[in-house]
Amino acid sequence: MVFKKITLIGASEDSLTDAVDDAIDRAEQTVENIHWVEVESFGVEVASAPDREYQAEVTVAFRVQD
Amino acid sequence: MVFKKITLIGASEDSLTDAVDDAIDRAEQTVENIHWVEVESFGVEVASAPDREYQAEVTVAFRVQD
Amino acid sequence: MVFKKITLIGASEDSLTDAVDDAIDRAEQTVENIHWVEVESFGVEVASAPDREYQAEVTVAFRVQD
Amino acid sequence: MVFKKITLIGASEDSLTDAVDDAIDRAEQTVENIHWVEVESFGVEVASAPDREYQAEVTVAFRVQD
Amino acid sequence: MVFKKITLIGASEDSLTDAVDDAIDRAEQTVENIHWVEVESFGVEVASAPDREYQAEVTVAFRVQD
Amino acid sequence: MVFKKITLIGASEDSLTDAVDDAIDRAEQTVENIHWVEVESFGVEVASAPDREYQAEVTVAFRVQD
Amino acid sequence: MVFKKITLIGASEDSLTDAVDDAIDRAEQTVENIHWVEVESFGVEVASAPDREYQAEVTVAFRVQD
Amino acid sequence: MVFKKITLIGASEDSLTDAVDDAIDRAEQTVENIHWVEVESFGVEVASAPDREYQAEVTVAFRVQD
Amino acid sequence: MVFKKITLIGASEDSLTDAVDDAIDRAEQTVENIHWVEVESFGVEVASAPDREYQAEVTVAFRVQD
Amino acid sequence: MVFKKITLIGASEDSLTDAVDDAIDRAEQTVENIHWVEVESFGVEVASAPDREYQAEVTVAFRVQD
Amino acid sequence: MVFKKITLIGASEDSLTDAVDDAIDRAEQTVENIHWVEVESFGVEVASAPDREYQAEVTVAFRVQD
Amino acid sequence: MVFKKITLIGASEDSLTDAVDDAIDRAEQTVENIHWVEVESFGVEVASAPDREYQAEVTVAFRVQD
Repeated sequence: MVFKKITLIGASEDSLTDAVDDAIDRAEQTVENIHWVEVESFGVEVASAPDREYQAEVTVAFRVQD
Repeated sequence: MVFKKITLIGASEDSLTDAVDDAIDRAEQTVENIHWVEVESFGVEVASAPDREYQAEVTVAFRVQD
Repeated sequence: MVFKKITLIGASEDSLTDAVDDAIDRAEQTVENIHWVEVESFGVEVASAPDREYQAEVTVAFRVQD
Repeated sequence: MVFKKITLIGASEDSLTDAVDDAIDRAEQTVENIHWVEVESFGVEVASAPDREYQAEVTVAFRVQD
Repeated sequence: MVFKKITLIGASEDSLTDAVDDAIDRAEQTVENIHWVEVESFGVEVASAPDREYQAEVTVAFRVQD
Repeated sequence: MVFKKITLIGASEDSLTDAVDDAIDRAEQTVENIHWVEVESFGVEVASAPDREYQAEVTVAFRVQD
Repeated sequence: MVFKKITLIGASEDSLTDAVDDAIDRAEQTVENIHWVEVESFGVEVASAPDREYQAEVTVAFRVQD
Repeated sequence: MVFKKITLIGASEDSLTDAVDDAIDRAEQTVENIHWVEVESFGVEVASAPDREYQAEVTVAFRVQD
Repeated sequence: MVFKKITLIGASEDSLTDAVDDAIDRAEQTVENIHWVEVESFGVEVASAPDREYQAEVTVAFRVQD
Repeated sequence: MVFKKITLIGASEDSLTDAVDDAIDRAEQTVENIHWVEVESFGVEVASAPDREYQAEVTVAFRVQD
Repeated sequence: MVFKKITLIGASEDSLTDAVDDAIDRAEQTVENIHWVEVESFGVEVASAPDREYQAEVTVAFRVQD
Repeated sequence: MVFKKITLIGASEDSLTDAVDDAIDRAEQTVENIHWVEVESFGVEVASAPDREYQAEVTVAFRVQD
């Protein structure tokens, strides 16, 4: 059982949890068999958005098909 | 005044904050005089749970009785 | 375009997200042109507050006037 | 000469070395021109496997075709 | 489901893998429900042992009973 | 707005800046909507090249299409 | 020979060395066979003490009985 | 002799060295007695600028007047 | 209650503890309501001083007035 | 009793443990009184060797003669 | 094939790349068979030099003769 | 002006400061032109010494002759 890891950055105007979910939602559109996710860092975009945008950089680990 | 630190991992299906609280709730069942908590990392279990399970690894510092 | 970074610690009794917001709210009272924020760490004060107090240490990056 | 890096997690019930090899074997099925590998971390799965399963997270660097 | 982590250092005169196993073997004498193990570092004792002694510092995560 | 990050290593016989550019140039052949780049590390290949070859490992963040 | 590590925070109003000693003194009341200690970090409490209180977070490694 | 450290981010469209200089130039407008500078990280802005903009985050240490 | 952090480097020809105190003494001349201090690193200046000069880089956390 | 540390990289086509031993064997040809060894990192050379070559970067601590 | 690593700090008044080269040039006067170099950090001396002096701390890896 | 760095571990039964001095004293017997020293870590040997032995691992930077 081999896993691969990819790094995504999700965003939300509501909460840090939703920013994590945003990244996982996007990953699920592309890869199957996601097993776990590690949160690498959090940030907030202030200047380039009308409201504060919470951002979460996450590493998504999914099982690679044999 | 000497403190000891232990490391726990709490979980919640609702939010990162609740995962932190879950670990602190459990620590309060075992040790007294908890002074502060440091969050070490966040993760999300995806494959082994029906819903996404947010996890928080925390270090709990409590005062040791003389 | 030069940026400067300052480090603040915000707090909230409600959530980690609110603790981040608390620090940004305070920064906005003092400096203008905040562009982005990096979350350095999270903690929880337990002993010195009636309720648990979530804390967020953040680095605020703002544009310096020429 | 440009290289790209991907992150894989291999496993073995025999040794840490075999867990590293498992990840490299899998990488060789997908990409060519692997030049070197860096070991990021080791772990052991205990609860979810009949025997202990050694795991190695590795970063595989391969040359990108022009 | 809350996990607790403890840190142990195992040793072996044969291999790094055996040093990891030594620490897990010892942990299993004291705690139940070990789920996973993270390897923190490896070392070798040279002066204080007749042969080289490989050492592995590991963090053992086990489920805490409710 | 979700971003993905990939890791590339570029090279140049002239300068560290050109090694960074080499990696970005290659990334632009494969992915669109690159927003920012983080430099992870610098190195120099001495033995395997006629001249010194400066190398830059960079992480390239690009916007993922919805 | 297996070692276990625990983390303590000692304090002193006199010096950093005394803060390290304070943590080791306390450890010796609870565990036997302490072999070595690693200093993780130093801090100073200013507001919550009449004088400055130097603090040392240390990891104490002791041999576990077979 | 006490020093204080501040963190600035400079930019240049020409080179990494110029991005470092840009931050130091700006610091010299505000503080005197700069002694040394540490480079924390390098990045490149791609999307928000017509050309690539190299960025250098630096820590500037200057002597504080008694 | 919001805190701000600043970074200072103190010095002493006597001890590491005195170098930490030197930085805190200087901070107290400028800011009020210092709550705690974290020691970032220690060094020794040898060439540029008649005697060895111990240096301590510290982060000082103080409460910001509302 | 003063120790000095040097950094070596050993290699083996057989196992990670043998790569560590290779570095220690070489150190023992040059220095006496080696006390302990810390493993810094592991890697695998793939392109420049007929078989995979496991590499171990280690820090060797030896006692300095008075 | 065993490698040894040494750490040097080079300097240049012109560019970061030249500071790296300065350290490698010096290493080549003392050791043979340099294979690769890793850049550890960059700094700038401001107070102790007439012009800004860029500094590069590098680790030089060279093959040890059997 | 090129500097080289070496790593030593000094010891003292009296204080952390003396352990740092012990390492510098020993370095001064072997190399000239020491400019500065960085403290990497502190530890305490408990089992292998009659009294507690404070240890300081330091990096000594000295100017290399042209």
